[in-house]
Amino acid sequence: MTKKSHRSGCPINLSLEILGDKWTLVVIRDIALGHRRHFRELLTKSDEGIAANMLSDRLKTLMDHGLITRQPDPSHKQKVIYSLTEKGIELVPVLAQMAVWGRKHLPVTKEFDAMAKTLEEGGPALWARLMKNLRATHLSGR
Amino acid sequence: MTKKSHRSGCPINLSLEILGDKWTLVVIRDIALGHRRHFRELLTKSDEGIAANMLSDRLKTLMDHGLITRQPDPSHKQKVIYSLTEKGIELVPVLAQMAVWGRKHLPVTKEFDAMAKTLEEGGPALWARLMKNLRATHLSGR
Repeated sequence: MTKKSHRSGCPINLSLEILGDKWTLVVIRDIALGHRRHFRELLTKSDEGIAANMLSDRLKTLMDHGLITRQPDPSHKQKVIYSLTEKGIELVPVLAQMAVWGRKHLPVTKEFDAMAKTLEEGGPALWARLMKNLRATHLSGR
Repeated sequence: MTKKSHRSGCPINLSLEILGDKWTLVVIRDIALGHRRHFRELLTKSDEGIAANMLSDRLKTLMDHGLITRQPDPSHKQKVIYSLTEKGIELVPVLAQMAVWGRKHLPVTKEFDAMAKTLEEGGPALWARLMKNLRATHLSGR
């Protein structure tokens, strides 16, 4: 990666320089919490109807920032599988806090409320378990 | 507010529909953690050099979504003061988790590291105290 200038050295700002848009965390959510690892799955199962060029662009940005990696899928040699890195996995608490906030203050629909309720009631202990499970699959190339 | 269609009813998506850009959470950060309550302060003390039209636009969006309110400043009648609502105050844990993640994985500078370290080491108990303090000032119109 080439050295880029940042707007400031504040960790919240630096996070937003990478994550601050309407799609990046949705893609991370689908990989981390939705267990979608292939391009086609991320595209066709998208609840928000992400467009192929947007998905492609976001996956590239996530790779450039070291949040995900891309390998040939060991079980389907012709396919590519996306994995979270440790840096990507550690976004789970950010997603979870956002889910807690959204559940309280925004018009969450019934179909999504169960998952959000689990994340909220499970709290940091559950988020840590989710990260542990993600490490076991994503970091070992499974 | 008029009824708008959402991309999905997922709380993470609904949060990103409001917060998913490079500036909104920076403005919330400056009000909540930087104690900046006036337009001029938010503009001139901005570490990221936000432009006046961008700041103005984001403050309007935050008001439209009920995250902040705007009143005449009781101590300077000619000025306007911005206050967080309960909905805005409850973004503190989202900001804090982002700070924790950014501190670990991004090139945070020394000047910002102390604040981030405090947020990280204080954890949810500190975030709750910060929210309590914000409620005491912002929700009472002080």
